[in-house]
Amino acid sequence: MSDYLKMTRAELEAEQAALKKAYESYLKQDLHLDMSRGKPSSAQLDLSMEMLSLTDWQDDTGVDARNYGALEGLPEARRFFGEMLGLSEEEVIVGGNASLALMYYAVDVGWRKGFPGGDGPWMNCPSRKFLCPAPGYDRHFRVTEYFGFELITIPMTETGPDMDMVEKYAADPDVKGIWCVPLYSNPDGYCYSDETVRRLAGMVTGAPDFKIMWDNAYGVHHLTDDHPTLLNIMEACTSAGHPNRPLLFCSTSKITFSGAGVSAMGASRDLIAYFAKQMFPMTISYDKMNQLRHVRYLKDMEQVARHMLRHRALLLPKFKTVLGALEEQLAPCGAIARWTEPKGGYFVSLYTMAGCAKRTVELCRGAGVVLTGAGAAYPYGLDPADSNIRIAPSLPPVEELAVAADLLCLCVRLATLEKLLAA
Amino acid sequence: MSDYLKMTRAELEAEQAALKKAYESYLKQDLHLDMSRGKPSSAQLDLSMEMLSLTDWQDDTGVDARNYGALEGLPEARRFFGEMLGLSEEEVIVGGNASLALMYYAVDVGWRKGFPGGDGPWMNCPSRKFLCPAPGYDRHFRVTEYFGFELITIPMTETGPDMDMVEKYAADPDVKGIWCVPLYSNPDGYCYSDETVRRLAGMVTGAPDFKIMWDNAYGVHHLTDDHPTLLNIMEACTSAGHPNRPLLFCSTSKITFSGAGVSAMGASRDLIAYFAKQMFPMTISYDKMNQLRHVRYLKDMEQVARHMLRHRALLLPKFKTVLGALEEQLAPCGAIARWTEPKGGYFVSLYTMAGCAKRTVELCRGAGVVLTGAGAAYPYGLDPADSNIRIAPSLPPVEELAVAADLLCLCVRLATLEKLLAA
Repeated sequence: MSDYLKMTRAELEAEQAALKKAYESYLKQDLHLDMSRGKPSSAQLDLSMEMLSLTDWQDDTGVDARNYGALEGLPEARRFFGEMLGLSEEEVIVGGNASLALMYYAVDVGWRKGFPGGDGPWMNCPSRKFLCPAPGYDRHFRVTEYFGFELITIPMTETGPDMDMVEKYAADPDVKGIWCVPLYSNPDGYCYSDETVRRLAGMVTGAPDFKIMWDNAYGVHHLTDDHPTLLNIMEACTSAGHPNRPLLFCSTSKITFSGAGVSAMGASRDLIAYFAKQMFPMTISYDKMNQLRHVRYLKDMEQVARHMLRHRALLLPKFKTVLGALEEQLAPCGAIARWTEPKGGYFVSLYTMAGCAKRTVELCRGAGVVLTGAGAAYPYGLDPADSNIRIAPSLPPVEELAVAADLLCLCVRLATLEKLLAA
Repeated sequence: MSDYLKMTRAELEAEQAALKKAYESYLKQDLHLDMSRGKPSSAQLDLSMEMLSLTDWQDDTGVDARNYGALEGLPEARRFFGEMLGLSEEEVIVGGNASLALMYYAVDVGWRKGFPGGDGPWMNCPSRKFLCPAPGYDRHFRVTEYFGFELITIPMTETGPDMDMVEKYAADPDVKGIWCVPLYSNPDGYCYSDETVRRLAGMVTGAPDFKIMWDNAYGVHHLTDDHPTLLNIMEACTSAGHPNRPLLFCSTSKITFSGAGVSAMGASRDLIAYFAKQMFPMTISYDKMNQLRHVRYLKDMEQVARHMLRHRALLLPKFKTVLGALEEQLAPCGAIARWTEPKGGYFVSLYTMAGCAKRTVELCRGAGVVLTGAGAAYPYGLDPADSNIRIAPSLPPVEELAVAADLLCLCVRLATLEKLLAA
């Protein structure tokens, strides 16, 4: 192997012929591997089975968690998620199994009813916009797309979204908010710096009810000991005089059971009271048995940290497998690709040469390895450079992942060769 | 005791003096009893504890119920609730712990997006209306009130809503649907006759996307052996050429755990596909572990019927206690009250003389017994006759319920005497 960008046409053709043979041998293996979504593996799901043996269903105030009531969540659960989000019990609503549903609901309420202090329902603003740091989480972008917002792409950097650009756009009254995954961003694994948090908290916004959608999905999902600490967004916003600006979200989806965890939403007391009032017509209460199961098992943030070490032990070899393959099989080919080396979270972000991502994903799929669709991490699913590929290494066992990672590298090289030879 | 309506003023005054003394002795008992909501008792919740011992989390297609996926629900669960609703697997979406949330969502979708074949989003109809058979379930009415519908009161009869009036109103294009609790209606315990079902299915509606909100909350909650059978609303609607008219709902809230059961929504295949598409931005999936727990424990409708006999054994003595007290302590007073004697469901509906319901509830509350607010079963919480009181006997133990029922009868008589003496 040597630097593709320095090869002659004949050398590129020879390389391509060799790699095509290698690709054909993969075709014969009849692979069926899924690296498309950040799904925990069965071994990770097994870590929390003890939680299911709970037999006492009375909460610490004597309430029977099995019966109706407590729309905002059990007090125990509100305290637990308050600790997780850096908030008090009264600043938290504990929801059902999906934090995405709470984020959708928050946008729905803004769209339909508006927020206190705002200019009325967002739906009344025909040119409403939402800031989307990209690459980012496709399901975030889709929520605001569904509610008719124009999605404004903000480039991600290693310290968070490009804040100059965020501040520029946020001054527009039509811009109602921004999506954020502040720790181990999806898919890059970047972490918001203190300066980024302070600028988000303090910036001038044109919309008085501008909302920071603070999805701390990977807040405890560290892969190293020297993990970064995130500034408390609520404290930063309150200090800056904007206590109603942040809406915080988290869940246990990647702590306990991805399909049957517990989610929570945090906000100022005033906004929590507002949400609870809006929620009243919608439901009697969320599943408090599952809330109690989780709180009794996970206990507090120290216990959560110990629990997450067991996830890390399962995840770290998978990240190493992927990163090792990229280093070994792509680095020698020169500047045809770059990738992130996250210290936590669920993804590795791979950047091919412009115009090669879709073709790489297509080649992988042809050989039985499903990746997230190229471009998925960008607003409207459109990566202008056709460069980014999100790698989700958590689901397959290490042995299978090694095969998949090798195939991925091969496909990147094949796609690159096609591009170089077509030039 | 004798007929109040035949008493002289002096006799009424003597009766009032005697009852006031009795009321004062209740005040000394410092009662704290709740008959306000249809909450199962702890003993009922205990019936399903075995469900929690499930250890195999693979569904019958090999899917791990703990992980993400299957937005429409596990196939096993869709089949189970399909059987409960009289529908096929493909006509069902299995939801979270609250069927109210699915009903809210269905109205939300109609309001915001509209339904295929309709005239667009219901929100675009400024004079939108919804039919509310009353007395009925307050939380139904509140959903449509929240979405800005005018609530049209339709009188309930022993065979369902007054169908002449329903047909008259349904011809108005502004009328978008009707709320129905077809079996053991809340609070009267009335059951829709076959004729009622056929007329609902076949009637001419002004709105092409008129929806029957068919909340079969008490579909298996019989208190007698000779229970009524309900005509299949989907078959009736399909026969009449209106397969997209009914939206069916049910849950296990009053079968297993009221706060942690599983809910389901049924509709035509086309509408289920439409709802699933709308739901995609909202969530990844509902809690499939709880779906699997329920399906493996409840198995099929035969097993459900056996399980419900155990609920009946706990509920029947409570209904008898209430009905016995009413018969013993109100019937001799003449036509000052009437009440329903339901063969299933969760409520007894008591009708006082006009103008006496609020005062009765107030007197009960004063002595420590909380009833549903008078008028709650009517649109906007306003009972024009101030006559209806919903009695929910399920929660208190029989001994306490006997005391509460005695107090209730005393308060009805006191309120009646106040009215008669004020005349």
